[in-house]
Order: sequence, then C-alpha cells, then structure tokens
Amino acid sequence: MQTIRYILVGLGNLGRRFCEVIAEKDALLRERYGLELLLVGAADSRGAAYDTNGLDPVHVAQLKQAGDSVAAYPGVGRLGWDALSLVEAADADVLLEASPVNLTQGAEPGLSCIRTAMRKGMHVVTPNKGPLVVAYRELHALAKAQGVKLRFDGTVAGGLPAINLGARDLRGAVVECIEAVPNLVTGYVMDLLADGVPWDEALALARDEGVLEGDGSWDLEGWDAAAKLVILANAVADFPATLDDVTRAGIVTVSAEALVAARRRGQCYRLLARAERQPDGGYALSVTPMPLSPDHPFGRLGRKQMGVVYTTDIYGVITAIIDEPNPIPSAMTMLRDVLDIYS
Amino acid sequence: MQTIRYILVGLGNLGRRFCEVIAEKDALLRERYGLELLLVGAADSRGAAYDTNGLDPVHVAQLKQAGDSVAAYPGVGRLGWDALSLVEAADADVLLEASPVNLTQGAEPGLSCIRTAMRKGMHVVTPNKGPLVVAYRELHALAKAQGVKLRFDGTVAGGLPAINLGARDLRGAVVECIEAVPNLVTGYVMDLLADGVPWDEALALARDEGVLEGDGSWDLEGWDAAAKLVILANAVADFPATLDDVTRAGIVTVSAEALVAARRRGQCYRLLARAERQPDGGYALSVTPMPLSPDHPFGRLGRKQMGVVYTTDIYGVITAIIDEPNPIPSAMTMLRDVLDIYS
Repeated sequence: MQTIRYILVGLGNLGRRFCEVIAEKDALLRERYGLELLLVGAADSRGAAYDTNGLDPVHVAQLKQAGDSVAAYPGVGRLGWDALSLVEAADADVLLEASPVNLTQGAEPGLSCIRTAMRKGMHVVTPNKGPLVVAYRELHALAKAQGVKLRFDGTVAGGLPAINLGARDLRGAVVECIEAVPNLVTGYVMDLLADGVPWDEALALARDEGVLEGDGSWDLEGWDAAAKLVILANAVADFPATLDDVTRAGIVTVSAEALVAARRRGQCYRLLARAERQPDGGYALSVTPMPLSPDHPFGRLGRKQMGVVYTTDIYGVITAIIDEPNPIPSAMTMLRDVLDIYS
Repeated sequence: MQTIRYILVGLGNLGRRFCEVIAEKDALLRERYGLELLLVGAADSRGAAYDTNGLDPVHVAQLKQAGDSVAAYPGVGRLGWDALSLVEAADADVLLEASPVNLTQGAEPGLSCIRTAMRKGMHVVTPNKGPLVVAYRELHALAKAQGVKLRFDGTVAGGLPAINLGARDLRGAVVECIEAVPNLVTGYVMDLLADGVPWDEALALARDEGVLEGDGSWDLEGWDAAAKLVILANAVADFPATLDDVTRAGIVTVSAEALVAARRRGQCYRLLARAERQPDGGYALSVTPMPLSPDHPFGRLGRKQMGVVYTTDIYGVITAIIDEPNPIPSAMTMLRDVLDIYS
C-alpha cells in the first residue's frame, strides 16, 4: 500500500465535489491500485487547514456546503492562512490546484502555488486553466527540470479526457484540425434563447442549473473557450499559442432571431473553438458561434454535453463527447490525473 | 536519438499499410520524439526476412503489393522461414504482431510469437484480437513477470483509442456499461440491405470496399464483435470475460424487411456489443443487431464509423467515435502503441 499525501487548494464547486466523492473511493483505490490518498492540507480564499495525520475530506466538504471556510476545521484550521503559505509549509506528494480561473490577476494564486509545489518536488494536478494559459511552456519546462509531473486533463471540456486523448493517443500524427465545444454554458444559453427564452431569464436558468458562474462574461464573451483552445493547441498540436492568437467572438454576437431561425432549419448553434493547421505548420485559432447541421459531430449536442473532434493524418477523424449532468466528472478529473501519475 | 529495433509479423492489410506509412513518419519521429524505428525483421505466411542493419519498409510493402512474399526480399529473405522462428532468432526491442485472427487454431501463430517475444524481454504491440481473446490474463501476467509492455489498442474499433481511453482515462471509476460498434463491416452491410441492395451484392460491395475479408462469417455472425467485447471487458472493466460469456447474435439474424422498416422509422441498425454491470459486480455481455434512434450516441453512425460509449459513476457518459475511411488508422495503432511505450 502506497500512501499519497496531497494538498487541495481551492474548495469551490470542483474542490468541494472532489472531497465528497474521494471519500467514497477509498476502498476501491486501495483494492484496485494499492493506493491510499491522504488529504493533508486544504485551502480556500479565507484560510487553510493542515494536518500531517490527514484531514477528513467529508468534513471539509461539509464545512464548505455550510458556507464556512476550511479555516473552521476543528483544531488545525487557521483563518487568513493563504494557499501559497500552505503549499510552502506542507509536506506532501501532490498539489491539487483547483482555485478559480483568474486571468486578470496573472492567474494567481494558482500559478504561484503550482510553481512553488513543483520547486519543492511535488507533482501537480490542476483543472485550473489560468496558470496553463499564462505559462504553459514555463510550467512544462519547470516540471521537466524538477522531474515532476504536471497533469491538467480537467482544464478542457470538463470530465472528457480531451487533453489525454489528444496528447497521448494522437502521438505520431499531424493534427490537421481541432474542433471543440469545451464548455456547457454557452450551448446551454443559446439553446434556451432558441427556445424563445429571453436573455436575462436564460442566464438566470443557467445560473440556477450551476452551469454559469460569476457575471458570465468570461464564458459568454468566449474567453473560457479561447483559454481552453490555447491549452488544446499547446497540448495536442504542440503549438505555442497564447490568448492573443485567438480570433474570438462570444455568443453575445448572435441575435436571438438568428438562433430561432437556425433551430427552424434543424441546426444547433454552438460556440465552436477551432484550431486549423496552416501551410506553414502553425495553427489558426478561432472561437465563434456556429450553426451546426445534424451531420456535424456536434450537430446534436445536448445541453449537458461537450466535445472535441481531432482530424489527423494517420488516425482518421476522432470525436469524443461527454454527457456531464453535474460537475462531478469535472471534479474527478483530479482523481484521473493522480492515478495517471501513480498507477 | 534512440533506435528501436522492431520485428513485424503479418503483412496483410494492416502490416503492409504500416510499412507504407511508417517510412513517411521517419523525420517526424526523429524530430518530435528523438526516436528512430528500425525494421529488422518481417514475416508473412510464406517466409521471412531479417537484417540487423534494417529492412526498407517501403520495399517490404512493394513486395506485398505485388503479391510476393517478404521472402523475396533481396539477399535476406528466406522462403519457408516461419514467424516464430524469426522471433526466436531475432535481436529486437519490440514485436509488432499483426497476423490475421485465427481463433480456430488457438490464435496461432500470433500467440506463440507473442509469448516468445515477451520471454525474450521484448515489448509487444498487437492489433490481433486472437491471442488476447484466448489468453488475456496469461499474457498480461507474463508481461508483468518479464517487465515488458503489452499494447493492443488496435484490437477494438480500428484506429479509435477505445482501449486506451477505457483503461487509462476511466481509472478510479466503476464502469456501469460499455457499448460498442467495434467494426465497420456489419453496419456497412446492414446499411446497404436497408437501401434495398440484395445480400450477395451487399457482401460483394463490402468486399470491394475492403471492409469485408474472407468468407465474412467471422464478422457477420458476430464473432468479431464478441471477441472485441471480450477484450473491452477485460481491459476496461477488469472483468475476466471469455467468448463463452457472450450472448451472440449476428446480423444474419435480421431480415432485410426489418432493416428497411427501421430505416423508414428513422432508425439505424448496428451490431451492438454491450457489457452491462450486474448487481454482483460482474458483467452481462451481449452482441445483438439493434435498431438505434437518432438520439442514441450511435444512432447516426456513418458507414465508415465505429464507436464506443462508456457509462461510468464519476466520469459521466463518454462517447468516442472514429471516421475511418481506409485501414490506415487501424494499421497506425501500432505506431501509437510503440510511442506509448517509448515516449
């Protein structure tokens, strides 16, 4: 039995769900992989808790569910102890970095936590796009130099292993084109608008359903899809793209009338992220709302589905789609990534 | 630069295509992965060739294209030298075992070649279902004992990484259900029958198109799908299934009238391979022609598409589909597998 000591930074939707589910997986992980996952530290925006003997993830989840900080964890929680200080202080094997995307502030505190963890010799697993969009190449070089692993399968298309499939199973291929519907909220909202639901009401419904967070501009203006496309281009096509390379239009650029008319034609609008190989070997990156016919691989995507299409020279055209009725698959990509490192 | 010395056994559709394409990948493999793949031995049913300085895969492909045996390879080809003797004699790092499925003769000569290669310390890559259906557990135990790798991503659904996705990206999950359309020919023929094409003509067209080989009974009676389901159940659900566990009906059990009627209802028949988890933790395995509605993940599969659907507890429902217009993706799974071992 190998014990893996991990720290979890970020206890929002993903971090909390991870805590809930990981406890239920304890027996399976021991039996199937000979692994014991021990949560030794956890941090949210208000504080942190650290215990070398292990925190109870169920109790952490309960605190968050009740609106408390993990700083309220009995005995070992400390208000105001920030995530970076926890990573610096903790003795652990892996950092799970699940703090919210924060590109306006240089992807902090996630980026610093990741750098610090790797410098300490820890592996890093993160579904947080921010640090990878800001510093994809730097973080990979650092991981290589430190001899640690960096896994981020959860950054694109929720629980769909879009990164893994593209980066591992397309090895040896030239990727001619990447197409992705890498988030739920944009399709969800456009489908409601096509139903005739007014904009404000559609946003409210998406928020109630848990697919829209914050004021929505990050998603609705296409930034989220663009960030995911940047990660796909780097990881799958080995193209050093940045956000500046993405031609971007959000779903705010499509009128409700256009959505209704497309529906009548049997088409389905989706915010399509696309990287197309150019004659010079580079890629043209775009994020655009597109009306898709039923014969397009995404032409019949449901409201809770995301997907990716890889067009390659030697592996044909590969489509992968996930039905993600709740955020658990997105959260559990952190388990997938941990097991990818250790089993 | 690392040189990987490999032997290729079986120079039918897959082996020959591999030889054609691998030569074109030489520069990419050197540049991207620092690897040089050197074909040192090749065998078909009539003979073999072996050269420690390397055979030219293009020349091997040309011999086969011309209807010759690789035994005709200038200088180093030997008529009547069989594959097993080549594996025993050769000094190589990896065996690519691409001989035809031959379950009636205990999956030979593939099975013996694989066992021998592993005992010699060679890694093994194979798209040949036979040895895995006959000896899945034994071969995996042998690989582990020998400290070598056994990769077989090409055994199911052609170039779709169905095995890789299921075995690696679902780690930590309970797989509730596996559904697969793991071959082309059955759907291809049923679509033609639904078009009103007579049975014999449909088979002839499938044969012309290269999707049907031999007399077709292996595919049309559902044996091919059953064999692939056995491999999926073992690799993805860790269930020690054998062919005897599969309830099997081939497409010969569906009338042309039923196919035409389904088409009129907007349904698409596919030979569906299914493994469903049972309350006792085991799986019920079946292969049955099924009429699928457009909202089923396979309900709009094209004639050159195959796919797999994994229903899991923590990763949602994941569908993967491949468009495979020719056998190159199936053949190039051998490159995917080699790179999975070495990069």
